[in-house]
Amino acid sequence: MTIQPLRCVLLSLTLIFSGQAIAEIQTQVINYKDGDNQLQGYFSWDDSIEGKRPGVLVVHEWWGLNDYARKRTRMLAELGYVAFAVDMYGKDQVTKHPEQASAWMSKITENVDNWQQRANLGLQKLKAHKLVDTDKTAAIGYCFGGATVLQLAYSGADVDGVVSFHGSLPAATEAQYSNINAKILAAHGNADPFTPAEQVTAFSNSLEAAGADWQLLSFGGVKHSFTNEGSASYGLDALVYDADADRRSWQAMQNFFAEIFSD
Amino acid sequence: MTIQPLRCVLLSLTLIFSGQAIAEIQTQVINYKDGDNQLQGYFSWDDSIEGKRPGVLVVHEWWGLNDYARKRTRMLAELGYVAFAVDMYGKDQVTKHPEQASAWMSKITENVDNWQQRANLGLQKLKAHKLVDTDKTAAIGYCFGGATVLQLAYSGADVDGVVSFHGSLPAATEAQYSNINAKILAAHGNADPFTPAEQVTAFSNSLEAAGADWQLLSFGGVKHSFTNEGSASYGLDALVYDADADRRSWQAMQNFFAEIFSD
Repeated sequence: MTIQPLRCVLLSLTLIFSGQAIAEIQTQVINYKDGDNQLQGYFSWDDSIEGKRPGVLVVHEWWGLNDYARKRTRMLAELGYVAFAVDMYGKDQVTKHPEQASAWMSKITENVDNWQQRANLGLQKLKAHKLVDTDKTAAIGYCFGGATVLQLAYSGADVDGVVSFHGSLPAATEAQYSNINAKILAAHGNADPFTPAEQVTAFSNSLEAAGADWQLLSFGGVKHSFTNEGSASYGLDALVYDADADRRSWQAMQNFFAEIFSD
Repeated sequence: MTIQPLRCVLLSLTLIFSGQAIAEIQTQVINYKDGDNQLQGYFSWDDSIEGKRPGVLVVHEWWGLNDYARKRTRMLAELGYVAFAVDMYGKDQVTKHPEQASAWMSKITENVDNWQQRANLGLQKLKAHKLVDTDKTAAIGYCFGGATVLQLAYSGADVDGVVSFHGSLPAATEAQYSNINAKILAAHGNADPFTPAEQVTAFSNSLEAAGADWQLLSFGGVKHSFTNEGSASYGLDALVYDADADRRSWQAMQNFFAEIFSD
């Protein structure tokens, strides 16, 4: 009679905590190629979760695939997804200098087909991961990466949704309208000097004309790169971390994922 | 030995469900006055919850305090809040005719001081409810009610936040800038003919100039009154229910409340 209550408590605790094993975040660097270009991506997932799960592509800022992109990839793993940081520039092409970043960014964005192809290559790598449920995928991106996930949607890629964080919000072209199947969420700083109001209007008007499922979440007084705690280290007035907008946009992304992965 | 396991299971179930008593949604109609104007508001709360909790003011559409506003009030009670639907027009002033709605709306909005005062009177009634934690209050509103909760914020009312659903998004005047303490979330249909892009820009610019904490969530392809399942019954092309935007904006409101009521 004195042992039973203890067993009972243990059973109760087991019932309550059985679904909450301690996370075991794994990471893996992979090398792959786009034609002659050597690329190096970065996977993360939680080994304490069993079975297949949705996959999320992560596209880096114009600085290249740096620690910030890797951090977001691990944060997605902590949320229960398999995440893959695609390399849009090339192995070790990471900088803190705007001129270099701009040059690398221009090199890949000047040809939209190549730009979309390299993003789609990352999506293929993600879907090839043995733990990814290939029917449930999304892509998120920051700054240049935000524009990239929009191009992924405009290319007709088979993803359920894309999320742009302080992206440059390229408008879709008329030829792309019928390609867009993915749902779109754009988190935008209303005071972002890199993405002025006219650009937001052109973006919105194009998606309206396309009949896309799109949402724009604008944050008042918020500048570029608001999700990156290291923004100040780049010495540009346009880049300002904003804790509220960071937390709110990450929450909005989670709600968006809950919706698009619910089927 | 055969009885103990059963007791054990019962204890486990008690542990798991003890915080989840069945909701007992209560409602109460109250009569009150603004000067000589007889008003009739509507409270709702959940009696299965003990103690004080945040309070949420609900402001009706231009049709008056109708079943739709009462439904949202009960939905807030189901979320655990005390909710109060303020009467902005007068007892029994409810219509389905746009001309009548427009006349009643103009009567209260033509004098901003009176408009704000009547909304603030509702806030006082909410705060006077014995179950409201007066340090945690918010206001939500639909259509005309969205504009009203913004005016409440512009009046300097002591609320933590306001949420406008398909509101007309009045800009704050310069004289109001320094009053604004409440956080602001506006859920907007990008294809709402009642609130065109120029109005959204004027609204955004004023809040930016005021340095307010504001967010705008725009839904692509979505028209006016997107949260109201009965929109089609009014026979106006501008009013279209949108299940996605309804669900997403209600979720955004809940996240907003979680933030502003977290302290």
